[in-house]
Formats: sequence, structure tokens, C-alpha cells
Amino acid sequence: MSVKVSIVGASGYTGVELLRILSRYKEVEIIEISSRQYEGKALKEVFPFFIGSKFENLKFVNELNKNSSDFYFLCLPHEPSLKLAKELIDNGKKVIDLSAAYRIKNASLYPKFYKFEHKYITLLEKAVYGLPEIHREKIKSANLIANPGCYPTATLLALYPSLKNKIIKGNIIVNALSGISGAGRSLKQQFHYPEAFGNSYAYSPLNHRHIPEMEDQIKQIIGKDIKVRFTPHILPVSRGMISTVSFETDLSNEELRAIYKELYNNEPFIRLIETPPQIKNVVGSNYCDIFVEKDERTNMAVIISAIDNLGKGASTQALQNFNIMVGFEETYVLKDLFSVYP
Amino acid sequence: MSVKVSIVGASGYTGVELLRILSRYKEVEIIEISSRQYEGKALKEVFPFFIGSKFENLKFVNELNKNSSDFYFLCLPHEPSLKLAKELIDNGKKVIDLSAAYRIKNASLYPKFYKFEHKYITLLEKAVYGLPEIHREKIKSANLIANPGCYPTATLLALYPSLKNKIIKGNIIVNALSGISGAGRSLKQQFHYPEAFGNSYAYSPLNHRHIPEMEDQIKQIIGKDIKVRFTPHILPVSRGMISTVSFETDLSNEELRAIYKELYNNEPFIRLIETPPQIKNVVGSNYCDIFVEKDERTNMAVIISAIDNLGKGASTQALQNFNIMVGFEETYVLKDLFSVYP
Amino acid sequence: MSVKVSIVGASGYTGVELLRILSRYKEVEIIEISSRQYEGKALKEVFPFFIGSKFENLKFVNELNKNSSDFYFLCLPHEPSLKLAKELIDNGKKVIDLSAAYRIKNASLYPKFYKFEHKYITLLEKAVYGLPEIHREKIKSANLIANPGCYPTATLLALYPSLKNKIIKGNIIVNALSGISGAGRSLKQQFHYPEAFGNSYAYSPLNHRHIPEMEDQIKQIIGKDIKVRFTPHILPVSRGMISTVSFETDLSNEELRAIYKELYNNEPFIRLIETPPQIKNVVGSNYCDIFVEKDERTNMAVIISAIDNLGKGASTQALQNFNIMVGFEETYVLKDLFSVYP
Amino acid sequence: MSVKVSIVGASGYTGVELLRILSRYKEVEIIEISSRQYEGKALKEVFPFFIGSKFENLKFVNELNKNSSDFYFLCLPHEPSLKLAKELIDNGKKVIDLSAAYRIKNASLYPKFYKFEHKYITLLEKAVYGLPEIHREKIKSANLIANPGCYPTATLLALYPSLKNKIIKGNIIVNALSGISGAGRSLKQQFHYPEAFGNSYAYSPLNHRHIPEMEDQIKQIIGKDIKVRFTPHILPVSRGMISTVSFETDLSNEELRAIYKELYNNEPFIRLIETPPQIKNVVGSNYCDIFVEKDERTNMAVIISAIDNLGKGASTQALQNFNIMVGFEETYVLKDLFSVYP
Repeated sequence: MSVKVSIVGASGYTGVELLRILSRYKEVEIIEISSRQYEGKALKEVFPFFIGSKFENLKFVNELNKNSSDFYFLCLPHEPSLKLAKELIDNGKKVIDLSAAYRIKNASLYPKFYKFEHKYITLLEKAVYGLPEIHREKIKSANLIANPGCYPTATLLALYPSLKNKIIKGNIIVNALSGISGAGRSLKQQFHYPEAFGNSYAYSPLNHRHIPEMEDQIKQIIGKDIKVRFTPHILPVSRGMISTVSFETDLSNEELRAIYKELYNNEPFIRLIETPPQIKNVVGSNYCDIFVEKDERTNMAVIISAIDNLGKGASTQALQNFNIMVGFEETYVLKDLFSVYP
Repeated sequence: MSVKVSIVGASGYTGVELLRILSRYKEVEIIEISSRQYEGKALKEVFPFFIGSKFENLKFVNELNKNSSDFYFLCLPHEPSLKLAKELIDNGKKVIDLSAAYRIKNASLYPKFYKFEHKYITLLEKAVYGLPEIHREKIKSANLIANPGCYPTATLLALYPSLKNKIIKGNIIVNALSGISGAGRSLKQQFHYPEAFGNSYAYSPLNHRHIPEMEDQIKQIIGKDIKVRFTPHILPVSRGMISTVSFETDLSNEELRAIYKELYNNEPFIRLIETPPQIKNVVGSNYCDIFVEKDERTNMAVIISAIDNLGKGASTQALQNFNIMVGFEETYVLKDLFSVYP
Repeated sequence: MSVKVSIVGASGYTGVELLRILSRYKEVEIIEISSRQYEGKALKEVFPFFIGSKFENLKFVNELNKNSSDFYFLCLPHEPSLKLAKELIDNGKKVIDLSAAYRIKNASLYPKFYKFEHKYITLLEKAVYGLPEIHREKIKSANLIANPGCYPTATLLALYPSLKNKIIKGNIIVNALSGISGAGRSLKQQFHYPEAFGNSYAYSPLNHRHIPEMEDQIKQIIGKDIKVRFTPHILPVSRGMISTVSFETDLSNEELRAIYKELYNNEPFIRLIETPPQIKNVVGSNYCDIFVEKDERTNMAVIISAIDNLGKGASTQALQNFNIMVGFEETYVLKDLFSVYP
Repeated sequence: MSVKVSIVGASGYTGVELLRILSRYKEVEIIEISSRQYEGKALKEVFPFFIGSKFENLKFVNELNKNSSDFYFLCLPHEPSLKLAKELIDNGKKVIDLSAAYRIKNASLYPKFYKFEHKYITLLEKAVYGLPEIHREKIKSANLIANPGCYPTATLLALYPSLKNKIIKGNIIVNALSGISGAGRSLKQQFHYPEAFGNSYAYSPLNHRHIPEMEDQIKQIIGKDIKVRFTPHILPVSRGMISTVSFETDLSNEELRAIYKELYNNEPFIRLIETPPQIKNVVGSNYCDIFVEKDERTNMAVIISAIDNLGKGASTQALQNFNIMVGFEETYVLKDLFSVYP
């Protein structure tokens, strides 16, 4: 018996990545995929690399049936997702929302960071933040998953053992790098190939939208406010993300590494490694590679993590949540995804 | 019961790609992997993206046992491969040789193009050129497969229906583009990142080693000599290959497309498409995408093919041959490999 | 006394490149620059790399004065350029038109290739095709220069000595590669960074707009029709172009090279080199590097040229024409432009 | 009358960049260039983009004459530079040393960070750290310039006004990104094109050699020790560097910006800009673009600078020092260098 799945906003990068990987699931049936832009077109017409896939002839619909599937992946802008998630949950469906609409428990932050009023406070409270390494138990029985942002995923996984062990003094400084696919499929002058080629720069240096998401989770874990000084940078690649995290701590290198090993030793998708992680080793996979070291000179910890922003930072993480919710092996299909080398 | 496989020269790009994909084969046991450079090291130490793979703890040996496996993949330079293939075949083993040592039936061309004398003429005659779309039947019972070169694969697949239908007048002009992984993992000044970044150029414009290989196959198919004017170019990417083929023909566009459809309609890894193929649609897969069109202005056919030089141009083609030889479904595992988008 | 110059459409890639290089001309005064999109903004606001340049405070106007300058560079789409060039010439101005509006002497080809009727036949006849290596004398006294397209520049320079010496038998086969800046600054899905990253493909394989331009010039030089079989390909870089040209000829390698040396020996911007040219050696410069060789196996010549599509393929070529028209040293400023290495 | 200049180690990236830009100097005569690897070869043979340059026929010598020039640029590894600089200074020559041999006043740090004992303490004391924005006056009369490292240049320019105004509390956190040309021209597996393509990662996360250089200068400016927590990252481009600097401060945004404006307002090569700087705007130039902002949430300043690691981070900075030492206009030639766009 197969799980019935629909994907809303399936022609964006995260939607296509879901389809690419779901084609390996024997027990999943795709009921509908939606896209305003490509209504009526077959998947293989718009994305020719799907020719030969079992999904090649799926046709994009404009608006999909809110009753015909068991599971809905929402790959929409934040505000449309807010409303649709509510309707689907009211219909008794399971929803994995890849937007930020249900990620931040403190609803009052939405107007400032996302320019809309959050109207579904009860649902917001029930939504589970879909970072399995932190919220695995809650995910099992969740109806609505707020699938984490890419920067928060990389950063929170770099921080989690330090937060849980309350070893952080002062602010957390995060410098991150992201491939351009993280900005989505919509055209922008700065991401026109000739202009982005060979370029790199910081952006949103003061108020990136992922800051409240990170600080909200940090508060949930450690029970108090810690501020994040966050500077993201553009990497001139398609996929890949690095989060370089520094904070003051009195732990020794040995102690620091020990708490990471303890918490992450059995995590199937976290790889603690002895050298700073490379994005090429995680692109196309669900892995998060993490390097941990204490800098005694400055009494600071340096934690560096790498993920695929469309993988563990979006779509494969959504599938990890999906596996947990459905009751599949958590690593199902995902454990076979390794980066293409070189 | 599983097939026992060893890989010789497993730390080069084609060897690593074999290991990456073989990790999906449930019925295959890797007995040994060899590498002079990394003797004694575990696969995951040298290539950290393998951490978590079932092969992660395989250790490179210097020289491997020539009796312990059923199948040997040779990822060696041409001359060492020549000798080792002979020994393994004499031991009754099955061998897939990714070098050029057994590709060209006319042994007299080896001294000129490969700088060695070919001593194993009988074995050279028995070796089967492993392009399944052309030699599928012979591959089934072959003991020694000469796995095709990347340029010949892309070019011969672009030409095969035209050759078989004897529609070509005059020379064949081939202009090809290749990602730099095709040059292997050994260091060269021109492929040092800062110098290859943003660069492109033709190379070996008169006497590339793949010319005799292509012309040898062309002669086998059509029964006479046709010359290939071949200019390869460097593409500043890791993987991906395009072969743009032109020749004079009196066929109309309709007739031309018909002969391609007829011959390739049931080929699982050939996709005839309506626009010139893009390397991003084939990288990481075993597909060869082909575009066919007649230019009436010049009375010439334009056939353009795209492959992954390490996929259909090397390692996944080797696995397609392997599937056929072992008796697996020909598309086993390979049918699930699609390019990472975007 | 300085030359008064205005640039129409100055916010596109060719316009910006003109400004970048004109900032080195001591004897040039920029009167006006126009751009609909950026009307009222200063050059340095839109293109911050100009901060510190003597042109930094130039403000884009919507429509510029057709009388205030001596020289007008037109960096417009083809059809607006057609009309504006006529008006400016009627006003007694000198015009260098970077569009294709006045490049093809056979006006009847415009509707098919450019989708407009050419109404200014007399002016079309008077316009001089601005390839100094071929039309230097005419350029000196021209009022309207049709600045050549990038592919025609690279290809015609590769062909000129062969055409002039009438050594070509049969069709000419041209395979060319171009950086994406050649497609201009307007946004397109296929040139969105994540999608163009690591990609390459042929395009317009049958009827690229530069074909009639090349064939028109070929006919002018050799006095008869020769067809060009032309396949352009996208290179995933910003700048750089290669044209790989093949044709049958009975000349020996020595004879072939001799006619190139003879014709190009004193050309300041043509470098005959002994290995296939690399785009990195010409990007940012006005050079055209050319490699010449006879392939005796196929009785074909292989001529490979490389230029910067925005340099010798557009803006620096326009300035070379400008130097000639004004009476500056032809190499003025341009001789100091070398590619950035590495 | 021209200045006689020789370049030692002229075939590395910094040496070639010096030659490229020195070809614009009318008043400079290159006496000798040295390179062990290319002894006897002409510049244009090794670097064909120099064909047409006035330096094209310069021949590399193995060891150059220590008396024949007035100025010597040393582009050597640290230890050979240490000795040669001493000899040349003893000969009464002017020396600009691009290695680190004379950068750190505290000689005791050399064994740890550079693996050699510093034997020329007196000369080390006399050497002037060649960052004109900080040490302009001393440079004028210096005989030996220790030309700064690329990371220290970008970072110290980002910090200088904050240091001078003593507004920094606690450690300084620096996250930096560098193009691969910063690692030099020698081959390394990790910089083989297929492996570096699409890759990025942090490296030397605890003890990069540029840390003592930065801390030494910081101490000189502010008179006390401030520690730098420094994490450099590889950018998959040839050239370009970003330094993202954070530290706690009680200054308001307005006050912070004011001290940068005050100090840098008349600096010809520092551009204070309103958005985070892009490497494409500085590559090929001597500019350092700087963005300054106070993050009130964390009470931290964020200063982000961008340079060309081979420009202001090496060779054009060396020429800025040279201009000052010779008595040329400080901006001579350098003011005409702008980045190639796009």
C-alpha cells in the first residue's frame, strides 16, 4: 500500500528536488504537482532531465485537490503557505511546509521579518520544527512540520550540543556561505550568470530572516536568549552551504569534542570530521558534516558545518521528516545519496 | 549469492565513481580495491564523502589478488592495463578494462597513438568493445570488455544510425567539449584551478588518441574507411561532454530523424530530444541525450550528443556492461541515476 | 581639443565596457550616456566599480541630445538602432553602431533573421563593416560603422587569409563557443546562475543570426557564395569566445601558415600562435589569437581563433574603429589592455 | 630617466601581475626577471598573453644580478627572501619583499609560524610594513618594505579606524574568503580543477600564518594585545578576497561610520560603500571596498572589506609602495585599473 503525496509549488528548486528523490520511493504515489507557471505541462517538458523517470509524465496543475492525498509538501512563498497549511490541516492532512510560515513560535516577529501578520497562532504552536536531530520524538506524531531554513539547519546542528550543555558565553557569531540556488529560481539581476560569475559578497548583514528562526530555537533548547551575530555570504556555486560558528567557552578542546561525539554519535546524517567540511562532500546528500575545535588563544570554540542547502537544508530534510512521520526507516532512500565526485 | 568484484586503480576518478555507484548494488561484494598512492588507507580517509557508505572501511591495497574475485574493473593507465588484463583473463576472470589497451582492433596503431607495442593480438581480437547500444549481444558472453573512451562514446552514439544506414558522404567533422575530470586526477599546471578558471580552448587539434578508436568502430559498422576531423575543447567544469557532429547527407530532416528513432526507440539510456542537449541534464547519470537535425542550406546533418564523461563515458557504461555480463537487468541501479538540478 | 562622445544604451554590457575603456582616453569628453532603466542615476550608483573613475558622476538620461556630440556609439537593440543611426547620420554625426542594423548588405535578409524590414537601403550601402583588418581604408572615411558581431569577428578573422587566397573547397564548418555575457544583460531563466552553473550546450544549431552576416562578408571578400555550417555553444563563463573553423583545402601546412603570416604579420591585434588559443589570454583585451594547421589525414584546414566577445567582439573593436575614424593611433589605449592572469 | 627594476621569482602569480602592470609605466626599465623553472625562456613563451607587451621578450634568468637595478621586487618563498633581502639592502638597493620574511616585528614568532629562525633582527626592525594607509610616511624613506599579506591587508584596513579610535571591546572575530590564486601557482591535489570546482571550505581554522601578522600590526596601532579569532575559507574563483570583521563596541552606527569617513575620506584606494562589497568590483584593481555598520541587537560592529588578493593584497599594493618610494604620484597607473565587468 502506498502513501499518497502531492507537492504544491513543484517547479521551484525544492519541489523539483523532492520529485527527483521521491522517484526512488517504491511506496509513494505522487497524486498531484502544482505550478502556476507551468500549468498543463508535463514534468519532462519543463525539466528534461526527468525523461526516463517514473514521474516524467506528471502534469503540473494550477491548483491542486486538497483532499486527494495523505501528505502535502508545500514549496510556496511564505504567505500563501500560511493559509494553505491551515486548510490542509483542517482537512485532516499531514503537511510538511518548506516555507517559514510556521517556523517561529513567537508570532510577533512575522510582521517585521516576513511582512505579514500571523493569524493561526494555535496551529503555529502545534507545528513541529522539523530538525530531526533535535525534535525527533515530536516529529513522529506531528501533523504539521515547519521544515527548517537552510542557514538555521547548518547553524543549529553546529550549535546543538553546545546549547544543550550550556557552555556558551556571550553572543554567538555566525558567518555563513551559501550557493545561489538558496535564493530560488526567480530571476534577479545580481544572479544573472555573467554578473554572479566569479563574484562573492556578504548580504543582509544585519537582519537576515533566518536570525529570528535561529534565536527562537536556541531559546527553546537552552531556555534563555542568546543573540546571534549573523553574516551570510554568496558563494558562486549552485548548491552548498557552510556555517562557521564562534563563541566563547571555557571547555577544553577535548571536552568540547566529547559533547559533540556523545550527542551525535548515533545520528545517521551527521558526520563529525577532523578537518573543516567541504561542500562538495555533502552536495546531493542529506549529510551535515561538522568540525569542532577549541581555540585556546581566544578561549573560543570554532564549529564549522556544511550541508547542501537544497538537501539537508530543504528537501532531503523534508524527506527525513516524511520518513519519520510515515514510519519508514528514517534513513530510507536518503542513506544512498552521496555527492557526485569530483 | 553475490558477485565478487575487485577494482584496480580505484583511487582515480573512474574507480571512485564505480565505488560510489556499486554501493547501491545489493548483490555485489567488493573484495579488494587497489591504489599505489593510498596503500593502507581506508576509502573514507581519502574520500571523506564515503563516510556512511557501506564501503567506507575498504582499505586500498598496493597490488591485489588476481584470483579472489569474479570480476575485475581495471582503472589503470593503458600499458599496465594491457598486461594485467591478459593475466586475469588467463586466470579465467571476467575483466572490464577502462583503459584503451584493448579498444582498437588494428594493433599497429598502438605504437603511434599510445607509445607501446601491443603484444596480445589474440586477446585483442577477442575483446569486445563495450558500447551496449552497438555490441550488446557480444557483450553478453564476453570475458574481456574494452570499455569505450568518452569522446568515442558520445560521437559513436551520435553517428551509429547514420553509419548503419550508410547515409554519410565525405568526412565526418566532430567538435567536442569536455569537462576537466576527463583528464584524470593527476596534477597539471593548466588544470590548476586559478588557471583553468574561466578558461576554454581546443587541444590536440590534429591527433587526439580517440581518433583511431572512433575510426576503427566506424569501419566495423559501415565496412569502409571514413575519416574523422576531430577537435576537442576544454570546458571549465568538472564533468560533462558534448559532441557536435556534422557530415554531408542527402536525407531530409524527416528521414534523418526517422532512422534515429527507429534504432534508438527502445534504448533505455538514449534520449532523443528536440533541443540541443545540455550537460547538466546528464551529469551523474548513464544517459546520452541526442539531438538530430538536417541543415538544408548546407546539405549537412547536425547531430549533437551529451554525456557525463565519467558516466556513460566511463564508469556507468562499465556498469551497464557489467549488468549485461552478470545477467542483471541492464538498467539495474543505473535507471535511478539522474542529474542533480540545478 | 577633445572629441565629444555620447553613448546610447550605455547600461548594457557593451556600453559599460566602452565607458570603462574610454576613461583612459585623455582626449575624449563624454557628453551624454543614456539608459531607460536607470534614468537619473549616476554611473557609480548602478555600477559601483566605477567609483573613483573620472566618469563616476555621469548621469544616465532617458533620451539623449542628437546634436551635442561628434561621435555616437549605439548600444541598442537592432530595430531602435536602425532608426536612430539614420537620424544621427542625417544630423551630420559620426556613428558606430554595435547592433546588427547595418551589417548585412543584402537587406532582404533582415525580415527573416531580425524580424524587421530594412528601410534605409542607401545608408545600408554606405555603412562600413567595422572589421579593421579587412576594411581599414574604408573605415577611415566612414560616417557609419556597422560594428561586427562577435561570432563573425572571430570567424572572419580566422578565415580572411584563406578567403583572400581562394583556397577553400566546399562548405565552411564553424563550431563556436561563447561566454554568457554575449547574450546581454537581460534576464533569462537559462542564464540564472544556478542553472547555467556547470552547464554547456549548443543553441540555434540551424539558423543563428550571425550566419547571414558571415556569409555576406565572405561573399564580399571572395566574390562568390560559400555556405557556413555554424553551431554555437554556451560556455559557462562571463567572457570569451572561440571559433573553430574547418574546411577542405589542398594547401600544405606550410603554405597555409604562410598566407596567414603574410596577411597578419603587421596586424597589431592579431597574434598567430603555435598552440590553440585560450580565452583567458584575450579576455579584457582587443586581441584575436589565431592557430592555423593543416590536417593531412582529412585534407582539411583547422583554424581556431579566440577573442573577448565584449572586447574585439564588440566594444574594443568599436574603439579600434573610433581610433581610426578620429585619426588617433589605431592602437591608442587598446595596446595597453591585457588579460588579467590568472 | 627611468627607474631600474628587477623582479625575483617573476613566474609566480604576484611576479606576473607586477610585470603586467609595470608594462604601463613609461619611466620603468625592467633589468632582469628570474625564475628557476623557466630559465632561458622568454616571458611570452611561458605566458602567451604577454605577446604584444613591451616586456614580451624579457628572458627569465636563474639568478639575477644584485647590483644592476635600483629596485628589487622579491616574489620568493619566505626563507629565500629573508636572505636575499639582506644582501640587497647591504648592496644599497631598495627592496619590496612580497614574502612574510620581514613583516612581523616579533622575531620569536617566525619559528612557530614559518619554520625558520629569523637572523636579521636589525633589518627586521628597520623594515617598514607596506600598508600605505597606515604607514605612508615611513614608506617614503624606507629601504626595505615588507609588503603585507592579503588577509592582513583586507582585515587591517577594515579595522584601522576602529583601532586608532580604541573602540574595540574583547576579541576581534574575522571570517575571510579567498580566491585560490592566493595559494600560489604550485600544484596541489585540492586545487586540481575538478576537485576545487564547485567547492568551498574553511582551512587552517586555528593557526593561519597571517594571525601573528595581523596581531602584530594591531598592537603597533593600539598599543596593546587584541586577539584575532580568524577563520579563512576557500572561494572557488581565481581572484578576490572578503574579510568580514566583527567586534563589540559601544559606538552607535553614526559614530562608527563617522570615524571611518574621517580617516579614509581622502584615501585614493579606499571606497566606503553603502552595501557589502563585491569581489568583482575590485578584482584587477588596487581598491579596497569597505562597508561599515553597527548591529545594535548584539552591540557589535560589522565591517566588511573586499580586495583583489593579487592586487591590493599583493602586487598593486607593492606598486603603490613603489610609487611612494620613487616619488611618483601615489596613484600613478594604479588609478586607471578597474575591474572587468561583467
